[in-house]
Amino acid sequence: MREKGFQDYYPDDLSHCFGCGRLNEYGHRIRSFWDGDESIAEFTPEPYHTAIPGFVYGGLLASIIDCHGTGTASAAAYRRQGREMGSEPVLRFVTASLKVDYLRPTPIGVPLILRGRIKEMGEKKAIVEVRVFARDTICVRGEVTAVLMPESMKPAGKSP
Amino acid sequence: MREKGFQDYYPDDLSHCFGCGRLNEYGHRIRSFWDGDESIAEFTPEPYHTAIPGFVYGGLLASIIDCHGTGTASAAAYRRQGREMGSEPVLRFVTASLKVDYLRPTPIGVPLILRGRIKEMGEKKAIVEVRVFARDTICVRGEVTAVLMPESMKPAGKSP
Repeated sequence: MREKGFQDYYPDDLSHCFGCGRLNEYGHRIRSFWDGDESIAEFTPEPYHTAIPGFVYGGLLASIIDCHGTGTASAAAYRRQGREMGSEPVLRFVTASLKVDYLRPTPIGVPLILRGRIKEMGEKKAIVEVRVFARDTICVRGEVTAVLMPESMKPAGKSP
Repeated sequence: MREKGFQDYYPDDLSHCFGCGRLNEYGHRIRSFWDGDESIAEFTPEPYHTAIPGFVYGGLLASIIDCHGTGTASAAAYRRQGREMGSEPVLRFVTASLKVDYLRPTPIGVPLILRGRIKEMGEKKAIVEVRVFARDTICVRGEVTAVLMPESMKPAGKSP
């Protein structure tokens, strides 16, 4: 494995997400990285993540777009503040809105590459565009509106 | 179990979807029914389908909205043609676009109710609004643009 992914910096009590939590043993464990000004992640769906046979399930594609988007928002928020990821206070983003356009059927059985790009970045809100490629062909385009996790969602007594 | 769900009428070779395929042993197996002019489905997430602890993972919510939406589109298309579900030719819909607004965090550990409503219905395209409720409170609103499955996605030599 290469360096730590964005999601590896989330504190333990915020690392149980089914899509990207390193402590969720059943989940997808998406990990995202910077690649210049874009973010990148790779994910190979399991054979049972199927829609129509031969193609990847749209709900899974929405899921990996979601977590790559919120991870990118978090990393960009730290970058904007000139802070290292993992430093406090924690900047954990959650999804307010998700839009996914399935441009063509996504073939199953090959690694998918996700590329994220910040479209808007504010103190508490980010809009991230995520494109999903299979064999260098764009298959899906998503947009994640991510917001800084509200106090009401924080596990009691943890994560400053 | 009550009567057959919309998805139970899909032919075998189109019943492997991770979200709703009755032949996908790893999947969510969403089943949808008519409730007057609306469609309804119930789904209880597993404890590991978590986002931030205590709340349901957004990607899972997108997934169940997706399959409830395409199932509703299929059922409505048969209804529009005055045909029984399962009769031929098969009317199987796939998702062209999905939009999900997370209105409030969705609590985990309780059954979720999905209610679908046809917003637009054409010969080859439907727009379905899906609302997700937990304890009678709306938590998520989705919109599924579903299109009749293109020939290019059909498993070879099957499903007329």
